[in-house]
Amino acid sequence: MRVLVAGADGYIGFCLSMHLARNGFDVVGVDNFSRRRWVAEVGSHSATPIRSMPERLMAFEQAFGKKMDFEYGDLRDYGFVHYVVDKFRPDAVVHLGEQSSSPFSMMDVDHTVFTQTNNIVGTLNLLYAIHRIVPHCHLIKMGSMGEYGMPNIDIPEGFFEVEYRGRKDTLPFPKQPFTDWYHQSKVCDSINIMLACEIWSLRSTDIMQGVVYGTRTDETLNDSLLTRFDFDAVFGTVLNRFCAQAVLGRKLTVYGAGGQRRPFIALRDAIQCLRLAIENPPDNGEYLVFNQFDEAYGIIELAEKVKRIGNKLGLDTEIEHVENPRVEEEDVSYYNPVHEKLYKLGFKPRHTLEEELNVMLTDLTKCKHRLIEKKDKILPKVQWKAE
Amino acid sequence: MRVLVAGADGYIGFCLSMHLARNGFDVVGVDNFSRRRWVAEVGSHSATPIRSMPERLMAFEQAFGKKMDFEYGDLRDYGFVHYVVDKFRPDAVVHLGEQSSSPFSMMDVDHTVFTQTNNIVGTLNLLYAIHRIVPHCHLIKMGSMGEYGMPNIDIPEGFFEVEYRGRKDTLPFPKQPFTDWYHQSKVCDSINIMLACEIWSLRSTDIMQGVVYGTRTDETLNDSLLTRFDFDAVFGTVLNRFCAQAVLGRKLTVYGAGGQRRPFIALRDAIQCLRLAIENPPDNGEYLVFNQFDEAYGIIELAEKVKRIGNKLGLDTEIEHVENPRVEEEDVSYYNPVHEKLYKLGFKPRHTLEEELNVMLTDLTKCKHRLIEKKDKILPKVQWKAE
Repeated sequence: MRVLVAGADGYIGFCLSMHLARNGFDVVGVDNFSRRRWVAEVGSHSATPIRSMPERLMAFEQAFGKKMDFEYGDLRDYGFVHYVVDKFRPDAVVHLGEQSSSPFSMMDVDHTVFTQTNNIVGTLNLLYAIHRIVPHCHLIKMGSMGEYGMPNIDIPEGFFEVEYRGRKDTLPFPKQPFTDWYHQSKVCDSINIMLACEIWSLRSTDIMQGVVYGTRTDETLNDSLLTRFDFDAVFGTVLNRFCAQAVLGRKLTVYGAGGQRRPFIALRDAIQCLRLAIENPPDNGEYLVFNQFDEAYGIIELAEKVKRIGNKLGLDTEIEHVENPRVEEEDVSYYNPVHEKLYKLGFKPRHTLEEELNVMLTDLTKCKHRLIEKKDKILPKVQWKAE
Repeated sequence: MRVLVAGADGYIGFCLSMHLARNGFDVVGVDNFSRRRWVAEVGSHSATPIRSMPERLMAFEQAFGKKMDFEYGDLRDYGFVHYVVDKFRPDAVVHLGEQSSSPFSMMDVDHTVFTQTNNIVGTLNLLYAIHRIVPHCHLIKMGSMGEYGMPNIDIPEGFFEVEYRGRKDTLPFPKQPFTDWYHQSKVCDSINIMLACEIWSLRSTDIMQGVVYGTRTDETLNDSLLTRFDFDAVFGTVLNRFCAQAVLGRKLTVYGAGGQRRPFIALRDAIQCLRLAIENPPDNGEYLVFNQFDEAYGIIELAEKVKRIGNKLGLDTEIEHVENPRVEEEDVSYYNPVHEKLYKLGFKPRHTLEEELNVMLTDLTKCKHRLIEKKDKILPKVQWKAE
């Protein structure tokens, strides 16, 4: 089976590419290394010292005796997308190649426009290339649980039956993203993919993924095969920032009251889920939605877990509440997204958050000097309401 | 009251600008004349011989003794948008400045990407400029009833109360556009505007408008003040094409079975509604949705009306079914969008479809030579499913 991974240099993309190539898939990775440039633009770097793509590919071949292909290019360039899809004729495309930071999308009008056009155009170009060249190819698209927002009712996997004024219909669940321009771009992608399935009979799985955490997978065997780990205020997720702060001996900064709730999944489990998605394509014309996460947590609860595990590892850790730079609900009373489909396909979460936090804190301690270099990048500077 | 009209050279935009300027509003129109270029690109022209903007402005002043301002510029250019909002400090912005043709957006990947980026970026730039310079300004945005698609339940005005698995919430009504990339761009605009109201406390009225028809308003007094009328397969609406075919003595071409249903509103009534929207702004932080149409019709029913009225005017008119170039439901059994809010504000439709069709056919007969020049542009060439 031939799989094109867009965003193959990224946190998930590199691990997924290795996992697939190791397990008998023909893999071509695509990337333009823009994530590395964006993180440099905000003055930070990956905590793990990641290698260049040529070094990564060589190290992978040495470690596993398998080859991975790679093509450099920008998904906004239809000529490139057409070329690479035509050249490799994939059975599946996994699209992880988007700008995925909320604060980056909130920096100013240029970053908002860039985030939305970059993400929307990349997805449109992939849809067109698949339609024209490989109409039976399965597009697996990385979306976000954040697309749903925080409704006061259960969140189904994509669609639900509505009764309204005495009549019934099955409709897409209303999307109301968390509160930033990045999540909006994912909603636009979702509706565009839905349309392509409808008019062109394409097939797609749209993954509503929770926040991913972890430093390792079964393939990150040595220093040359590490995946990136961002911890700055713009590209680091909340759990990454807590872990970096714990290792640095700084207070864990909870935004506002900390009653926000978010769904989470370990990196190794996310890879497992993506493989299940690849191996279980919908029919042509079908638009399938998976809610891909393991467990939902309150933010204050996460801070306490990091503190407890940090303390056991000898890290002196306290929790501090700071002013919330975002506009978001800080005291979520109800949050209940359904997540059944992947479990039915055989998904079994293999790593508890506690186990994974142990590994993360241990791994980050080895990179402490790199955290120290960029320690002033962890506190938020981008304000949601700012000029 | 100072009103900025984006898209002031367009079919509705020019009429709205004249109406407001005549009735005591300070108006600045903004346009880059792109609609004229797009129509030329597909090889057609407006049936009515419209004048250049400088001629229009002069003729308006001569006719009504009032001045209208105008600034040339592209809404995709944030520098321009910031400049013009800063210069005029509007109380309201009416945003009609988008690419609004479904077939144009379906032509190829370039037209899809252009339509979505043009529309989404223009709206984002206006939101940013309003946020930064005039945060109390009311954004009235032209959306489309097509954003809702054809659900089998009633369509509320924007939001509805949902009961699901024993819990209730008020949520945005799910958007599932008709079936083309243009309507998708409007959905993206809507969610972006919703977010700006939420995080920046802007105020906006999002107009879900039906198909607009008609050749005249109270201000289109003479040849220099005519508004455009497109009748080609790409930019002409279904009713415009029927009228052009009737005047040309050709068969009215119904796409497929003709059981499609669409909501409609006369141009003069749309102007009336937009003025009501301008005069009734929501509070800061509020995102208000109007379903702006008068009546919904089946397409075959419209063809029959045009035929009947055409026959009375001495036009020899027949109806023909042609293969549907689009992917759409051709036999809609239920379509019931709510439209109450504008009526509560005082909206009274003043022109029946029949009266307006009489005027349209009469006006178009005067322009028959211009229809003849482009008669080969009326039948559809853009195929939804084509390569």
